[in-house]
This record gives sequence, C-alpha cells and structure tokens, in this order.
Amino acid sequence: MTINFNAGPAGIAAQVLEKAQAELLNYAGSGISIMEASHRGDDFQAVIDAAEAGLRRLINIPDDYEVLFLQGGASTQFAMIPMNLRPDGSADYIDSGAWSSKAIKEAKILGQGTEVIASSKDANYNYIPADFTVNPDAKYLHVTSNNTIFGTQFAAYPDSGDVPLIADMSSDIMSREIDVSKFGMIYAGAQKNMGPSGITLVILRKDLAERAPDNLPSMLNYTTHIAAGSMYNTPPTFAIYLIKLVCEWVESLGGIAAIEKMNNEKAALLYSEIDSDDFYTGSAQEGSRSKMNVCFNLANEELEAAFIKEATELVMIGLKGHRSVGGIRASIYNAMPIEGVEELVDFMKIFREKN
Amino acid sequence: MTINFNAGPAGIAAQVLEKAQAELLNYAGSGISIMEASHRGDDFQAVIDAAEAGLRRLINIPDDYEVLFLQGGASTQFAMIPMNLRPDGSADYIDSGAWSSKAIKEAKILGQGTEVIASSKDANYNYIPADFTVNPDAKYLHVTSNNTIFGTQFAAYPDSGDVPLIADMSSDIMSREIDVSKFGMIYAGAQKNMGPSGITLVILRKDLAERAPDNLPSMLNYTTHIAAGSMYNTPPTFAIYLIKLVCEWVESLGGIAAIEKMNNEKAALLYSEIDSDDFYTGSAQEGSRSKMNVCFNLANEELEAAFIKEATELVMIGLKGHRSVGGIRASIYNAMPIEGVEELVDFMKIFREKN
Repeated sequence: MTINFNAGPAGIAAQVLEKAQAELLNYAGSGISIMEASHRGDDFQAVIDAAEAGLRRLINIPDDYEVLFLQGGASTQFAMIPMNLRPDGSADYIDSGAWSSKAIKEAKILGQGTEVIASSKDANYNYIPADFTVNPDAKYLHVTSNNTIFGTQFAAYPDSGDVPLIADMSSDIMSREIDVSKFGMIYAGAQKNMGPSGITLVILRKDLAERAPDNLPSMLNYTTHIAAGSMYNTPPTFAIYLIKLVCEWVESLGGIAAIEKMNNEKAALLYSEIDSDDFYTGSAQEGSRSKMNVCFNLANEELEAAFIKEATELVMIGLKGHRSVGGIRASIYNAMPIEGVEELVDFMKIFREKN
Repeated sequence: MTINFNAGPAGIAAQVLEKAQAELLNYAGSGISIMEASHRGDDFQAVIDAAEAGLRRLINIPDDYEVLFLQGGASTQFAMIPMNLRPDGSADYIDSGAWSSKAIKEAKILGQGTEVIASSKDANYNYIPADFTVNPDAKYLHVTSNNTIFGTQFAAYPDSGDVPLIADMSSDIMSREIDVSKFGMIYAGAQKNMGPSGITLVILRKDLAERAPDNLPSMLNYTTHIAAGSMYNTPPTFAIYLIKLVCEWVESLGGIAAIEKMNNEKAALLYSEIDSDDFYTGSAQEGSRSKMNVCFNLANEELEAAFIKEATELVMIGLKGHRSVGGIRASIYNAMPIEGVEELVDFMKIFREKN
C-alpha cells in the first residue's frame, strides 16, 4: 500500500477516488460521464452548487463573501489580486517563503506600491515573521498561510486592523478552523486539500470586488466571475465535481473540527519523533512549524539520501525535500491517514537505530 | 445507450474513459492515481511528454512551433494574444460569431488597434465572411475556425500573406488535417475534441513569442510557459493525462486523416437528411456549413420543442440550439460514432412523417 507524502498534487482520499471511479462513465444515471455533461445543464449546475454549499458549510463562509472557482492556480491570483484590489495605492506583503516571493514579484510587475513589511529570507525562511507594522493606508496585507517548501505556517494570523487581510491558503485550506470574517480574501489551489490540480478557490468579501477597474480583461476581473457564478467560460467541470466529493468526505468525518484534530495528532506524532534526540533536526523554528509539511534534516546528505531510498523501497513516496532546502519533507495533508504517519515514524525509529 | 450531442463539454470516446477508469486509483502500477502524482515526478513528466508528442504527430506540428498546455480556456487567450503579440501596432479580426466577438472585445479592452475587417453579424452570423482585405502591417489576423453557436466553419482558411494567421480552433481542432505552417498560432480549449474542460492547447510559432513585452504578469506571458515546459505552476495534470489518452485513441483509429473521413461522412449524412425536403432547414449558408455543429430549424418553435422532447426520450441529448439562434443543434465531434448520427437521422425521418 503506497503511502503518498507528495507536497502537491497530493493524496486524495480513497473514498473520493472510488466514488469518482464508480460513476466515471455514468454520472447519476445520466448515461454519460460528468466530464461529458454540459456546464449549462442541470446535472453540472447541481454539482457546482453542491461544491459551493459544501465549502460554505465546512469553512463557515459568511454570506457577504463570494465563492469562486477559477483557473490558473494561485500564480494567476498573484496578478489578479493587485490588478483588482490595488488599482491605485499600495499594498503590504509579508515574505515568508518562495510563494510569498512570487506573489510579491507579480505585484511589483504591475506597478509601484508593493511594500514588503517583513521577511524571513535572512534565515532561509525557517520562521514566520512576527515583527512588523501594517501601513493603515495599505489596500491590503498579503500573507502565505503555509509555506510548503520551508515547512512553516502561521499559527495565528496577523491582526491587520482595518486593512483587509489576504491569505494564500493553497497548502492549508480546510486543514483547520478559521474565522473567515477576519479576512478580505482567501484563495487556494485545490491540489493539496481540496481535489486535483487545475482549479482554484477564491473567497472574496463582496465589497472588495467593487475595487476592480473597468479596463481589466474579462477573465482577470473578479466581477466577471461573480456575475456569471464562475461560469463566464467553461469551468473545469471534473475538478469541481471532485471538490464536491472531497467536501462530502470531509463532512462524513465530522467536518473541519474533526480534520483539525487528526491533523494535530499527525503532526504531533511526527515532530515528537524528530525532537526525541539529535538524530533528526526539524528545519523550521518552533512556533513556526507547519502541520502540513514537516521538514527535517539528518546529519548529512548521504544519510538523507539513504533515508529516502529506504523509505521509497517501503513505498513511502514523495519524501525528498525541495531542492532549495534539501533534507526530508513529509507532507501530511488531510487525506493522509494517521496510520501513514505511524508507518513513517516506525521507519524513522528503525533507521535511527541502524545508523 | 445515451447519444451525446452536447456542444461542449462534449462526448469523450468510451475507450478513453474506460482506460481512465481502470487506472484511476493505480496509475501504471504506481499505487496512486495520476491525479495524486507530483507534476515534478517521472510519471507525470512522461505523461505530458507523451501528450505533446501525440499532438505533434497527429496534427503534424513543425519543430519551429511551441506546444503549450495552459489554463483559463480560449477566453484567457482572447486577452493573452493581444497582450503578447500586439504590444504595439494593430491587429485584424474577422467577426464570424459570438466567440469572435468576445475575442474582439478583449482585444479592444487592451487598447486601440483592433480592426474588424469583415463580419457576418448582419445575417446573424449564418455565413463565413469571404470578402476582406488584410492590412499588410497588421500584427496578426485572428479568425474563429468553427462557430459552435451558429454552425459555420471556415472551409478553407484565409490567405493572410506575411501577416501571421491566428485561429481559435476550440471546436474543430483535430477534426481535419491542417497545414500548421500556414498559421502563426492555433489555440483550442480541449473540451470538444481533445479531452475535458480546464485545459487549453496553444501552438505558437517560436519567433512570435519573442514579441512579448517585459511587463506582463508571468502567467500571462507565453515565454514563461515556454521556458517552463508548461509547468511554471502546477498544471491540470489529470486533464493533460486525458489528452494523452485521446491522442492514443485517435492514433488507434488511423490518425486525423481517418477521423476527417468519418467526420465528413457524419456531416454528409445529416445535411443530406436536412436537404431532402423543406421540413428541416439548415441554419448556415451552404459553403459555410460546419461539420462539427449541424444547426437546423423546423417550421416553428412548437415543432422544434416537440422534436427535442421526443429525441430526449430516446436518450439523444444536447440537441437544443443555443438561445441566440434557437432551433436544433447536433454537435458531432470526433467522439460521436457514425451510429449516433444514423440514429438521429432515423428519428428525423420518423418525426417528419408524423408531423
């Protein structure tokens, strides 16, 4: 049984894939695949409505927020956010890793007024910056909730006062309970906790959408997608269908409170093993540690390579750290069962004893 | 057995869906779904390489053309084309239907220099304009190869001289043999002839990519995606996998020459029935008729509604014409077997006799 520690695209719950498999050629008795259904038909409308309703229930999204399903990944949001929400004025950014840096780069391409108010680049991003002052005139404050590459995560989100807080939650959406009303916008690529790659969730406070200037290309204007219920053009129908199935699976487990409890247990188990002596060293500073991507090092690269090789032989895959940090990265998103983490911890104990 | 005449998303060959279903939870013995595989891993790299190679073989794409897999549909290309290929100067457009009009609208949003050199709007787009002069200084000439809504199609593409010809082939890509070297760029959403929605093919002559200005958002710059082999960010992996399977299916049938022959037979069968007397009337003018979307009318709306109702009872679905033209539309893309068209024609005969 393969244990999938991929950073993303990542594991999807077996129940979700089995359901998709069972009805792949015949959706709900329609005689055709949901992939072959018109996005303007009743079947798909029911799917996208159920996906939105599921997300609204699970994430507890208030009525004054839009829920959009867009294409182009978080990387397209890096451009759409300044285009739509900062047509003039400046915006503040916290630089906590590679994805934050990309968001900042895109904002700068689109013009002046991109202020980096804190960065942990000085320590190869091994912590979440906590010391900063938000400009009260900023159009928004942008943060990356969880840093997949460096294994860090905001334990608590910054208080940005009246400045709308925008969070890229691509790698920890639906992993823990959040108070959406504290945010101006939340966005996330689906491919870690929500479904397959190729679909991006945007949760946007309605008043902020009104900032969009008139001269944006239609596909890059949030108001286009709001007016069209995410169907201005043909949406990625199969990906939205899978989000619906993932929502049903999360609800069957007891919702996000239950998922969060499991995620806490999984992360505690793994960090406890890392901290048990000096054989393994956590990459991230305590207080900044991610519960989604647990990154750690061994004494040297040879030992790390041996660790990955032996783990792979035991069909534990995806454990190689990103090239910019090296070491080991165990991504333990929602779909990773506690048993998968237990097997990894068992292997870590054996590997320590042998070396 | 449902016969799917949807205009798009449209039918996908049963062989493709069956293969996807069989390996949905275990791709090529990997123990995981291809959806759960890292886009940076060997398995997915082999998939995207095979999808590109399959398209290059089938469409006969020369080496001096890039093949890109992008998100955002043709609608995003409507903006990217003028952004990248007409940063200054003007471009010519032929307005042959709703999608052409949208391409023109987006080009105009991005600035001056959008010349509509011909339009069939005067006749509710029931023909392909043939009378126009291309400005020799235009940066490109843009056409919509097949007009899904109005059932028209370029029988032959215009000769634009040294002006690069750009064609939106969303609804007829891979349906007939083309000479790619006559085009500067070809693009197509996958959801009619290539796979599911959520993935867009771009075939771009290499020298044209160099026109892109420096100040474009990375995701909207063709050079970004060229440099990254369509993996600047996480691509829609499952959709690309399905394109690979569709290519394998087309090759198993004998390639595009064989597909074109079948498409010609399917369209001839249907138009011959329409033309057999005055009970049915083809919407498009002869010479402009589409072989992908066969649109026709009956004597009045009541009769058309009865036709659709009775056909649906016989599980022939998706036959309602677009609201802007009314009537009947039978979309008969590559995956529609000749038997499906024969059943429709049989029903048309019976319906005529009864009414």
